[in-house]
Amino acid sequence: MVSQEWQVLIDEKRAQREASIPSQWKIPKRVADKVSPTASVSAFQLLEETDILTKEQREITEVHDATFLLERLATGKVSSQAVTTAFCKRAAVAQQLTNCLTEIFFDEALARARFLDDYLERNGKPMGPFHGLPISIKDMFMIKEQFATLGYVSYLTKPKADENSFVIDILLEGGAVLYCKTTVPQGLFIMEGYSQVFGQTMNPHNLSLGPGGSSSGEGALVSFRGSILGLGSDIGGSIRAPSLCNGVFGMKLSSDRLPYAKQQELFPKGWPSIVCSLGPLAHSARDLSLFCKSVLQAQPWRRDSTAYALPWRELPSKPKLRIGVWSDDPSFPVHPPVSRILASATAKLRDAGHELIMISDAPSLANAVMTACRSFALDTEQAPIKPLRDANEDLHPALEETIAQTFPEGHVPDLSEVWAVNATKEDIREEWAQVWWGNDLDVLICPGSRSTSVPHGKYGPPAWTLIWNLLDFPASVVPYLKADKELDNQPAEDFDPLVAHGAPGSIQIVGWRFQDEEVLQATEIISQALHSQPPTPLKPMLNKL
Amino acid sequence: MVSQEWQVLIDEKRAQREASIPSQWKIPKRVADKVSPTASVSAFQLLEETDILTKEQREITEVHDATFLLERLATGKVSSQAVTTAFCKRAAVAQQLTNCLTEIFFDEALARARFLDDYLERNGKPMGPFHGLPISIKDMFMIKEQFATLGYVSYLTKPKADENSFVIDILLEGGAVLYCKTTVPQGLFIMEGYSQVFGQTMNPHNLSLGPGGSSSGEGALVSFRGSILGLGSDIGGSIRAPSLCNGVFGMKLSSDRLPYAKQQELFPKGWPSIVCSLGPLAHSARDLSLFCKSVLQAQPWRRDSTAYALPWRELPSKPKLRIGVWSDDPSFPVHPPVSRILASATAKLRDAGHELIMISDAPSLANAVMTACRSFALDTEQAPIKPLRDANEDLHPALEETIAQTFPEGHVPDLSEVWAVNATKEDIREEWAQVWWGNDLDVLICPGSRSTSVPHGKYGPPAWTLIWNLLDFPASVVPYLKADKELDNQPAEDFDPLVAHGAPGSIQIVGWRFQDEEVLQATEIISQALHSQPPTPLKPMLNKL
Repeated sequence: MVSQEWQVLIDEKRAQREASIPSQWKIPKRVADKVSPTASVSAFQLLEETDILTKEQREITEVHDATFLLERLATGKVSSQAVTTAFCKRAAVAQQLTNCLTEIFFDEALARARFLDDYLERNGKPMGPFHGLPISIKDMFMIKEQFATLGYVSYLTKPKADENSFVIDILLEGGAVLYCKTTVPQGLFIMEGYSQVFGQTMNPHNLSLGPGGSSSGEGALVSFRGSILGLGSDIGGSIRAPSLCNGVFGMKLSSDRLPYAKQQELFPKGWPSIVCSLGPLAHSARDLSLFCKSVLQAQPWRRDSTAYALPWRELPSKPKLRIGVWSDDPSFPVHPPVSRILASATAKLRDAGHELIMISDAPSLANAVMTACRSFALDTEQAPIKPLRDANEDLHPALEETIAQTFPEGHVPDLSEVWAVNATKEDIREEWAQVWWGNDLDVLICPGSRSTSVPHGKYGPPAWTLIWNLLDFPASVVPYLKADKELDNQPAEDFDPLVAHGAPGSIQIVGWRFQDEEVLQATEIISQALHSQPPTPLKPMLNKL
Repeated sequence: MVSQEWQVLIDEKRAQREASIPSQWKIPKRVADKVSPTASVSAFQLLEETDILTKEQREITEVHDATFLLERLATGKVSSQAVTTAFCKRAAVAQQLTNCLTEIFFDEALARARFLDDYLERNGKPMGPFHGLPISIKDMFMIKEQFATLGYVSYLTKPKADENSFVIDILLEGGAVLYCKTTVPQGLFIMEGYSQVFGQTMNPHNLSLGPGGSSSGEGALVSFRGSILGLGSDIGGSIRAPSLCNGVFGMKLSSDRLPYAKQQELFPKGWPSIVCSLGPLAHSARDLSLFCKSVLQAQPWRRDSTAYALPWRELPSKPKLRIGVWSDDPSFPVHPPVSRILASATAKLRDAGHELIMISDAPSLANAVMTACRSFALDTEQAPIKPLRDANEDLHPALEETIAQTFPEGHVPDLSEVWAVNATKEDIREEWAQVWWGNDLDVLICPGSRSTSVPHGKYGPPAWTLIWNLLDFPASVVPYLKADKELDNQPAEDFDPLVAHGAPGSIQIVGWRFQDEEVLQATEIISQALHSQPPTPLKPMLNKL
């Protein structure tokens, strides 16, 4: 249990956060009273019970994707002030309904928006590819003058950042507006939304369901459209799990393509294990591409010496894909809605003229998960756990379980274990090479998780995402359909069709290592095929836009 | 000392090699008698005392580069039989003068050449980018039905290869003719030319000088023009040291761009240290590009799961380069000819309109070398040394010294050392990032070694090449000028201007990690500027060609 002194700091932190939401943006008490991690209620429904957002602000935040807004922002058809105000307001509501933010700096954002509107008028051209667009940021990235506690109680005494992470510099130079940072789970090591500092982040589709993790707040905020584009990171599924839980698009690139450097202290230098990757959460496949392409075109390797000097590659168009389908695994069997949704996607893609190859001889998922755990266990200092011990935090049961699985009692890896883990990883990649190139695949589709979003604390091991971190394969998540108690009523372990009902569905799209551009392209193609209209319908615009 | 049983196998091996050279290609005894690792005599000179090669064969082997020959081969202007015969003959002479070959299979090569000539006639087009061209291969690559002893006595009992290394498959599918494999030094861990199985490889420019290593035989053979294009590998300078010692072009790519898999047993799987890179030795900068581009266009990652899926990138032309110049280091001071030659190159490049930036604050080379040694020392089994112990080989003094430096008595690395080595490597790369991007460099030029070629056994630590393996930066060697006893008569440690006289000079060209294409492009541009005419003058061709 944390000491009284720490508890004071936690209370202060929460009070400051509360105070940073303008009073006129506060939701009515009658609505706030309905918010609870046990309430099976939709934040979208609760939004309808408020009138904080104007009709225009509802449209700006609800109807478009980032690519659309950026076109309008770049040509002055809509001002950054209008867009920023709309997203600040909606993020404020998201915070009150889903508890997804850590740091809130709307005033700075609005000043920045005014500056960018002036910039456009003065220069007759936008500052860069992100001109005027609010972008939300996972807490671990450093933003000058903002805190980065990562939800660690012991990080509450750390000072504000005195410089930006490199990726933040790139976003700002590209004209982005930063306005909030988002929650991560305890230790950043579980696919849950809970931290002792900030409490429980909830899934806007159903507050009683988890938002996934570790980009928990990004998942909830982007889903609620309190953000049109968010920056996350992923070492085992931390972009993809929140994407699939909350029904948004997400992309994890191959490691070290986007610049990782200058984040809040977490992994000590020299980390010989799985490398954490950055990537966006978004509302369309083309927004994923826009984000990745724009950051890569800023040549991140020229400032971050850990980033690979691999420029963005433009690909020729690809009318027809060869898509492998990996639908299930005996050790991590998927739940009925996940099966049904993948099967539906397969049929729809086949109808759209793509070649679908059912993979019946996939390598063992259990072996990959075990190897990933052995890889994490090379970190004998248990770096992400250490700050929890520093403040004597009570561990969330899911974290306790994860720690027990990852660092089993008595397992003391030595130098030879590095070789063994590397060798096993190479073996697994070779097994996948047989599947991949043997079938001449462009990409593979598979579940992103055994389940759709589950009640808080129940996500379990992120097997279906973790394997692609182990192999360093780029992977995206595309939202598609929803769990349905009528259609998904087959019995399955740990599954209740009534609980799952209405939770967003998805598929995961995976590419070979470094084929980031190919995955982004395939994500656009597949998304187009799955959604006769884009998942977020691009309704006719208001005249103003 | 090896046992009597092993000695018998060594003698047999040498006798077989001797027997595989047709008697009509044997050099006269009066010439052979002049060959000795202590004889300060040029193999090129000795060649003039033989008449084994016809005038046409002299021209085919001496006058052109691979790009030129491939154009002629692809259009049938010269037959693969003619070209292959010429290079087999010349390789036979090279072997007798410099002792550079391990395996000789001229008969198979000539049969293959006939097949390819038929292929061209039948199909009206070449088989691929290497159609009809003889390519020499460092001993460590596996060629079906050929041995790969790596000069290890204990490997003399290993069977012939039952499959090709992936890169060999790619060369063959591209139409290459394989005709010989080339020597490597004891343990592949020194920049010398000696192994107990095959004896001493010599530098054709001066038999008393070393050929460099570990692609020792490639260096000597390509230099002597017994090969027009050779395949080497480089984990500390093993392509670049033989290139600079023997006065040829060489290129080491970033690791895992060219396919490494399926080589003779050497590094155990899971190797957590510096990764060995492949690359060509050649007679022109454009031949380096041709080789790398052709192999990458075969998409090696589709067969070798360790190779990165990074396709060849075509670059826009670059009329003017920003070139950093790193000319010296206090811990590894360079000898007078190396200084003079780099200064001359700098002046010539400046005259050609490039921007030259003198780097006065380069990071410590000693720190990089020490870190590389610590990285190799993670291999507590001392994999490359182990097979020597298996046959109780006497260690070459240079190898004994290297082992003592790399695996110091009492240094027992543990798991934490992996982190420490990685972290130091990242620090060094970051220091270089400050130099590189702070000066907005396209490439860096620097010495490839403290010296030009030195007497056998005296190469010392390959500091100036090893640093780029540690950082995984691509690097090439361009031959330029020669050591000159008149010009280089300043006193320096371990340096005798009379001994160095006439040894080939060179510069090294280095790029940022993964900027392989940029280094190849810069190598072509720089080579053009340095050699008012190409280093191997492309004289008017015989009518036949």
